Amino acid sequence: MDSGIYLKGVRRRSPAGLGDTYRELEVMGDDAMAWIGLYRPSEAQLWSLAEQFGLHELAIEDAIVAHQRPKLERYGDTLFVVLRAARYLDETEEVDFGEVHVFLGRNFVLTVRHSESPDLAVVRRRLEEEPELLARGPEAVLYAILDAVVDGYAPVIAGLQNDIDEIETEVFRGDPAVSRRIYELSREVIEFQRATRPLIPILAALSAGSDKYGIDEELRRYLRDVDDHATTVVERVDGFRQNLQDILTVNATLVGQAQNEEIKHLTEASYAQNEEVKRISAWAAILFAPTLIGTIYGMNFRHMPELHWLFGYPFALVLMGIVCGVLYTAFKHRDWL
Amino acid sequence: MDSGIYLKGVRRRSPAGLGDTYRELEVMGDDAMAWIGLYRPSEAQLWSLAEQFGLHELAIEDAIVAHQRPKLERYGDTLFVVLRAARYLDETEEVDFGEVHVFLGRNFVLTVRHSESPDLAVVRRRLEEEPELLARGPEAVLYAILDAVVDGYAPVIAGLQNDIDEIETEVFRGDPAVSRRIYELSREVIEFQRATRPLIPILAALSAGSDKYGIDEELRRYLRDVDDHATTVVERVDGFRQNLQDILTVNATLVGQAQNEEIKHLTEASYAQNEEVKRISAWAAILFAPTLIGTIYGMNFRHMPELHWLFGYPFALVLMGIVCGVLYTAFKHRDWL
Amino acid sequence: MDSGIYLKGVRRRSPAGLGDTYRELEVMGDDAMAWIGLYRPSEAQLWSLAEQFGLHELAIEDAIVAHQRPKLERYGDTLFVVLRAARYLDETEEVDFGEVHVFLGRNFVLTVRHSESPDLAVVRRRLEEEPELLARGPEAVLYAILDAVVDGYAPVIAGLQNDIDEIETEVFRGDPAVSRRIYELSREVIEFQRATRPLIPILAALSAGSDKYGIDEELRRYLRDVDDHATTVVERVDGFRQNLQDILTVNATLVGQAQNEEIKHLTEASYAQNEEVKRISAWAAILFAPTLIGTIYGMNFRHMPELHWLFGYPFALVLMGIVCGVLYTAFKHRDWL
Amino acid sequence: MDSGIYLKGVRRRSPAGLGDTYRELEVMGDDAMAWIGLYRPSEAQLWSLAEQFGLHELAIEDAIVAHQRPKLERYGDTLFVVLRAARYLDETEEVDFGEVHVFLGRNFVLTVRHSESPDLAVVRRRLEEEPELLARGPEAVLYAILDAVVDGYAPVIAGLQNDIDEIETEVFRGDPAVSRRIYELSREVIEFQRATRPLIPILAALSAGSDKYGIDEELRRYLRDVDDHATTVVERVDGFRQNLQDILTVNATLVGQAQNEEIKHLTEASYAQNEEVKRISAWAAILFAPTLIGTIYGMNFRHMPELHWLFGYPFALVLMGIVCGVLYTAFKHRDWL
Amino acid sequence: MDSGIYLKGVRRRSPAGLGDTYRELEVMGDDAMAWIGLYRPSEAQLWSLAEQFGLHELAIEDAIVAHQRPKLERYGDTLFVVLRAARYLDETEEVDFGEVHVFLGRNFVLTVRHSESPDLAVVRRRLEEEPELLARGPEAVLYAILDAVVDGYAPVIAGLQNDIDEIETEVFRGDPAVSRRIYELSREVIEFQRATRPLIPILAALSAGSDKYGIDEELRRYLRDVDDHATTVVERVDGFRQNLQDILTVNATLVGQAQNEEIKHLTEASYAQNEEVKRISAWAAILFAPTLIGTIYGMNFRHMPELHWLFGYPFALVLMGIVCGVLYTAFKHRDWL
Repeated sequence: MDSGIYLKGVRRRSPAGLGDTYRELEVMGDDAMAWIGLYRPSEAQLWSLAEQFGLHELAIEDAIVAHQRPKLERYGDTLFVVLRAARYLDETEEVDFGEVHVFLGRNFVLTVRHSESPDLAVVRRRLEEEPELLARGPEAVLYAILDAVVDGYAPVIAGLQNDIDEIETEVFRGDPAVSRRIYELSREVIEFQRATRPLIPILAALSAGSDKYGIDEELRRYLRDVDDHATTVVERVDGFRQNLQDILTVNATLVGQAQNEEIKHLTEASYAQNEEVKRISAWAAILFAPTLIGTIYGMNFRHMPELHWLFGYPFALVLMGIVCGVLYTAFKHRDWL
Repeated sequence: MDSGIYLKGVRRRSPAGLGDTYRELEVMGDDAMAWIGLYRPSEAQLWSLAEQFGLHELAIEDAIVAHQRPKLERYGDTLFVVLRAARYLDETEEVDFGEVHVFLGRNFVLTVRHSESPDLAVVRRRLEEEPELLARGPEAVLYAILDAVVDGYAPVIAGLQNDIDEIETEVFRGDPAVSRRIYELSREVIEFQRATRPLIPILAALSAGSDKYGIDEELRRYLRDVDDHATTVVERVDGFRQNLQDILTVNATLVGQAQNEEIKHLTEASYAQNEEVKRISAWAAILFAPTLIGTIYGMNFRHMPELHWLFGYPFALVLMGIVCGVLYTAFKHRDWL
Repeated sequence: MDSGIYLKGVRRRSPAGLGDTYRELEVMGDDAMAWIGLYRPSEAQLWSLAEQFGLHELAIEDAIVAHQRPKLERYGDTLFVVLRAARYLDETEEVDFGEVHVFLGRNFVLTVRHSESPDLAVVRRRLEEEPELLARGPEAVLYAILDAVVDGYAPVIAGLQNDIDEIETEVFRGDPAVSRRIYELSREVIEFQRATRPLIPILAALSAGSDKYGIDEELRRYLRDVDDHATTVVERVDGFRQNLQDILTVNATLVGQAQNEEIKHLTEASYAQNEEVKRISAWAAILFAPTLIGTIYGMNFRHMPELHWLFGYPFALVLMGIVCGVLYTAFKHRDWL
Repeated sequence: MDSGIYLKGVRRRSPAGLGDTYRELEVMGDDAMAWIGLYRPSEAQLWSLAEQFGLHELAIEDAIVAHQRPKLERYGDTLFVVLRAARYLDETEEVDFGEVHVFLGRNFVLTVRHSESPDLAVVRRRLEEEPELLARGPEAVLYAILDAVVDGYAPVIAGLQNDIDEIETEVFRGDPAVSRRIYELSREVIEFQRATRPLIPILAALSAGSDKYGIDEELRRYLRDVDDHATTVVERVDGFRQNLQDILTVNATLVGQAQNEEIKHLTEASYAQNEEVKRISAWAAILFAPTLIGTIYGMNFRHMPELHWLFGYPFALVLMGIVCGVLYTAFKHRDWL
Repeated sequence: MDSGIYLKGVRRRSPAGLGDTYRELEVMGDDAMAWIGLYRPSEAQLWSLAEQFGLHELAIEDAIVAHQRPKLERYGDTLFVVLRAARYLDETEEVDFGEVHVFLGRNFVLTVRHSESPDLAVVRRRLEEEPELLARGPEAVLYAILDAVVDGYAPVIAGLQNDIDEIETEVFRGDPAVSRRIYELSREVIEFQRATRPLIPILAALSAGSDKYGIDEELRRYLRDVDDHATTVVERVDGFRQNLQDILTVNATLVGQAQNEEIKHLTEASYAQNEEVKRISAWAAILFAPTLIGTIYGMNFRHMPELHWLFGYPFALVLMGIVCGVLYTAFKHRDWL
């Protein structure tokens, strides 16, 4: 919570107390401007300021509740702007959103933050170092905040790009857990799209030629520059979404491909293995045939002429050899060996 | 069914009977306003009111039939608005739609409901507690109803988000029944999109600067606030649709991946199993060779020289051992053991 | 083919012959209106009417050819409207399109149909029962036809919804033929989109505030009502298209899932089966070892000391038992039994 | 290459030489109009005509290079139109594009073709048969060419529809080569979309109410008719694209389904086959047990009491029978037989 | 870095030093124009020129940082244009982007390049050869640069088309590595879309009829020509994106199809292989039966009547034959052989 009263862009002093800021301003004349910065203010503080500066009840309610989408609303002389800053949490691959509410009157700016980001102290320092810019009045503060918020998207873009690059590597390396990572990053990207897209019409409205918002031409140029950066962010994020959808498809293909490849290799290995079983079986069958012959001539019949032949034994051995040979040839022919 | 006659935002009394409301209003002067609330009225009641207040036949027919899409139509001095409220039935994961028809005249509001939601009693209570708002006339009632309907979308959004979160968990845990749940939630989301999207142009038309609908600037601000909330709802729902489509793809990938993984493991197990069969077969084949030798020397030929050798028997045993050893070495070499 | 001449919304008579309608009208004064209804007219008839009423050649050519997309064209004083009616053929799950061409002049309506639907006799009857509506002139006829055509889309929507519901059931029950049904219904839905979408700008043009088409405010309200219904139809059909695309994805996932599940179960069964083969082989191998011993002691060597041992035989049996026991233990250990 | 000079829609003569056409026209007065048709002209011819008729250098360069997208450009008094005609080559399923460049001045039309289609001779013949149309001047020629080009899309649409129908049949019949055909037809459809879509804004601009292009109301009606046909073409082609994408998904599903079905059947057949192997193994194991008994009683031990039993032999046979029976029962029990 | 001072389109001399260009111009009168071309200038150089020519600070900052999206911005009298040139690196299939920043004043052009492409020396040479074009002033230079940048997209389109053609061939030939190539080319195409699409509204704004940018009608025609080419590029690139997405789907289908086909063939081969194992087993079983008989008659029981039969031996052999025959018939019947 930091506040200051400025005269022609130069800080004169901090307001004595929030409750008297308006009176202090009155005393200092038309060129004076107050910038009141609040961090998680109480409802009472907000209502007190609303009374002093004539802020609209609806805007105050929005500022209390937070979790608004970016918006721009004019209430009589007061402009009310909601912006969403973003940070990238690298460890969890999450986009963390902050929110800032800006009330802009003729001679005051009131900024309300509900989160650490965006860091408005940096914005205040920048503006206090550029008094000629700050002298343009409350709209200059709005510009500087918009500029800081949009510049703050750059590291988010870089972080998302980095994670997409990592995901690509994982996908093509075949990491099975990558599906979940793709999905979760997609979800973050969708949420980031939702936070950044509404900014474009807001910046377009502020930087358009019309005098509706009372912003001078020079500041409008600055705002168009912010608009350019915001558009680049939105287009990059849209590109990320497309990349991630392509990756999802590619990953599905590759995962299936890799697994099928493994199954195929296993099936091939089984085939080779069965081939061996087949050959073992065939060899066993070949050995079996002479065993049958041996068994026959091992029978104890009294009348078995061959047993009494002089060359009965060699005859049996030759018979065994012939049978083996015949079977070997037949099996070879059928590719069973 | 609750009705009241108001003077400068304060309830004076309930109308004596529906049939005389118009006359009662006339008597009470220009600042009087009637708000007649009907719940599932009979056709006769509607036609009677139509005659009293000069409501258009087409609007009455719409109010009888119900099942309209949200719309906004001007009939002469009367505005006719159809809105769809929504509730989330958590057990069945269904979005349940209600419908309210609002007729808005110079000094009366007629609301017709065909379902329990939206709860207009709550709206009436709120307005009766804010007489300065209600004093703005029938348009204030319209605003309050729109506000209630759009606020009523918030629990639907929360319920859908919750179910999507659950679905994500199920998808990554590999629940096979999740496909159906994803599909059915997608269907609800599409229907919810159809119910909420037409609201945006209606709110835009009502809150736009033109005097076509005779709504004062302050109320238009309130309506723009409702518009913001409705836009947030529509954007969230669009995001849900994208999330669910991504989930559908991821789920298809993961289901295939998990099953292929199981098939792969089974194939690997079969391979290991067959390896054992192969080894058993190979051992059997090794045992078979000495059996052949034994069978040969068990033959009963008279002239078998080896049988008479002094060391015939050890010779046969050694022969068996050698054969086994040779086969063992050969099989080992071929990785058959 | 039905035609009539009306005076202030009331039917006076049928025209004596098509060729004299114009003269008859002239005689009856400014308030008379002819409504000529043709069903598949000959080219000659059309050209004859074109000459009488000053219809534009291009419109006549369109009316002869048919198979136009819905359109609205002004030729001087004459308005030419092409509409496509639709019926749902439940048996074949096809949307059947009819076409009606409407020529609208100051004091005449000419309707040309090339198909049975839409049933204009019903439209004529309705209008003849509402003379105060018909008295508004040819535009009232156009409104009534548009109303009938758009109302006729309702059963198509119901039929498509019904088939989608059936398809959902089939998909989740695992009907293999459902892919074709999804695809063919998608094709019908795309064609129905093509037939209905061009209606929206036509109805918007007719019901817009401008006087270009000379339609009075009251009729424009009626047309806006038709526009609402048509928009509901178009949005439902768009929803159907999205549903069907989701179903296509879900079906692909489920079909693969179911088949993989079956393949997995078969693979599991094969595994169990092979386990049995393995155990049978192992048992056979165990039985084989004592056979080898038996074969050895069945050899006929003269000098085999064991044969002469007193306890040679029990020794052999015990040896067999030991070998079996050792093998059994070893195989059990390796989970081969 | 055909050229003519027309007076009030009637052909008077062919120009003596390209180089003098302008002078000839001057002589014949304000109602004369030249239509010069060139087919693959040389650059010199084009530059010579450019000088005569004051054509713009950029348009000439476009006409020389060809391969432009459809466009409409006004250079001072001259209108320059690029159109792409299309033919469908049925054998190769390719859309073949032709290109025609039209220069339109106050009293001349110059058409430049780089391909055979569109056949402008047919257009010239049609116009010469309708002098009252041709008398409307160069814009009538433009209309007739546009009409011919757009009519020429009809057979392309028919050819594409026909191929999509064939593809559908192939997909549902399970033709494995259909993926490639779907993809290649999609590519043609995308190219055809690129060729036809830019025509819509051109026709809209020409037929709009403004006098920018100096086209009279009657001709604008004709052009709106062409616009209708072109819109139908574009919508059909968009539908084709959607159909083909659905088919791609369905095909992927069906292909996987069919193959998985085959794999499933093969796996089932393998299961049945293994069942037989198992039974054969089991039978072999049953036969093996009596063999063991036979081997035991074939041993030559001196002291084997059973051998001397009177009923030793029947005892052995019965033992064999019992063992077989026990094994048979056990195997049956385990479903091994 | 090349600079020149031109009088009526003709180069007079190079500026003496960057610091004095403005003074030199002043001396040479109203028709003089300076074109200063910088390549990777220092910040100091840029700020010095900014002071001389009154360039806006924001534009200078953009020109220093580079990596802008294409844009068009008016700062008072000065126009600031950012363009992205592209080259196609064939080896890596990458689109390489260059960037040029153009400042346009009443009598000067300042071009700042941060990359080799686009080659502005070629543009300068072209303009110096067409003094009548260059005489139109700084806008002519802008036109020529735009023309060169857009013409430079043509080889990128050709390169992308070529790679897509190659990818198609690979996809249908079944190259497994093509998934990655498709994905990476898609990424390049998305980036190229991002670089080229913002050009269309820039060219539309410059070539539109309004005098906002002070470009004469003739130059606007030239710019519309560039616009046409740029639109063709954008449409081609959009087509590429669609092609690549179709290819991704087709590839996923084909990869799965090919692998499943291989798995199917392997499964078929396994089936045939197992069939052989089954037959070998069956043959072994057939040989086993006579072995049992032989073993029985090899038993040494004293009382075995068959042994003493005269035809015991032939009886046993015949028995063996019969058993084999019976088994053979039974196995054949069960298709086990």
